Amino acid sequence: MSFRIGQGIDFHQLVAGRDLWIGGVKIPHEKGALGHSDADVLLHAICDALLGALALGDIGTHFPDTSADFKDIDSKILLERSYQLVQQKGYRVINIDATLLLERPKIKPYVTAMREVIAAIMGIGTEDVSIKATTMETMGFVGRQEGLSAHAVALLEKL
Amino acid sequence: MSFRIGQGIDFHQLVAGRDLWIGGVKIPHEKGALGHSDADVLLHAICDALLGALALGDIGTHFPDTSADFKDIDSKILLERSYQLVQQKGYRVINIDATLLLERPKIKPYVTAMREVIAAIMGIGTEDVSIKATTMETMGFVGRQEGLSAHAVALLEKL
Amino acid sequence: MSFRIGQGIDFHQLVAGRDLWIGGVKIPHEKGALGHSDADVLLHAICDALLGALALGDIGTHFPDTSADFKDIDSKILLERSYQLVQQKGYRVINIDATLLLERPKIKPYVTAMREVIAAIMGIGTEDVSIKATTMETMGFVGRQEGLSAHAVALLEKL
Repeated sequence: MSFRIGQGIDFHQLVAGRDLWIGGVKIPHEKGALGHSDADVLLHAICDALLGALALGDIGTHFPDTSADFKDIDSKILLERSYQLVQQKGYRVINIDATLLLERPKIKPYVTAMREVIAAIMGIGTEDVSIKATTMETMGFVGRQEGLSAHAVALLEKL
Repeated sequence: MSFRIGQGIDFHQLVAGRDLWIGGVKIPHEKGALGHSDADVLLHAICDALLGALALGDIGTHFPDTSADFKDIDSKILLERSYQLVQQKGYRVINIDATLLLERPKIKPYVTAMREVIAAIMGIGTEDVSIKATTMETMGFVGRQEGLSAHAVALLEKL
Repeated sequence: MSFRIGQGIDFHQLVAGRDLWIGGVKIPHEKGALGHSDADVLLHAICDALLGALALGDIGTHFPDTSADFKDIDSKILLERSYQLVQQKGYRVINIDATLLLERPKIKPYVTAMREVIAAIMGIGTEDVSIKATTMETMGFVGRQEGLSAHAVALLEKL
């Protein structure tokens, strides 16, 4: 058996006039995440964990924010493409575990939907996708609700 | 063999008039960690890594800070309960590695005691529990001694 | 087979009058990283992930910043020594994945060189060393270009 480990981290500003996409789910909120794509911080962290596990570069290498191709793109497409690269190398995901750093709103009501979206994109079980969340206790730019962040790890196995 | 990976991150404010519990050990300091429980940032990050590895939710799901049951609770109890959930799924911990982000005091004198406390709760060897520490070089809310943070990863194996 | 997981995090201030060493490569920039050694944030995070996986302490334990022995030391030497400790325990690295948090300059042009340097020190393939990078979207001390950070994970296997 051959295993690999990956990790990903992402950050986006929270601003008025944007939608808030997290984990492939649109969450009602007075602010949204700023970015070239739909700025889905959780899917971006997961993409980076998948790419990083196989040293395939990062999300900025594959989907540059200077390219019009990726303007306002649905990050679910980026996750799909990232996982295709993993599969082309002969690997599958064993499990993904992620933490979202966000002061508000509470994302607990959306976690099941996020896990289902992510699992469906990769063709794995929802029990193999974990999404956790914590506030930063009002500290820092996350605590001041100026931004959000996500950290993810992934364990892959060669088929 | 069947493996799973988990990660956890936690943050707490440092304030006067609270005890400073880290890794199950009470550390003499002029400030302590603010929280609903004893606010043990390191044990909370480890709980989340254990729960996350098996997609069992997070510490906020299992031990909500809105519940009187967990007011001022010893986080060692939360770790014990989290590991029971892991064991009920038929898994054991291979190893845990964590980093504490804290400007001061130096925690090096307490690391051995922390590792012993954590290992004993889970019935594993101290060589399977790693605790590292770094300052944030006076930067950010950790650097200003307004708060502290912990990051942990865990590798689990199906029995 | 016996596996272990490790993680490492490091931070340094960015100041004028210092060289900027990242991943063993000197990067032209108007600021450099402040520290007792050459302050290579990426190599330090990787050292900690290696040491942490086997509960061997952390970079501060082995290479204290209070020791004249490590003043301005090339962090490639610290990585070499950290990996020797791993090998003495009978383990090898399967893969390393890291993310650099840095607002500017862009490090993409240097990533291949960094991977080659790190892989050569450990005698592993460049395909087993992944370096990713992200900005913090102008937020926090990284976003204000006052500092930089690196996060790394490592998967080890017993020989």
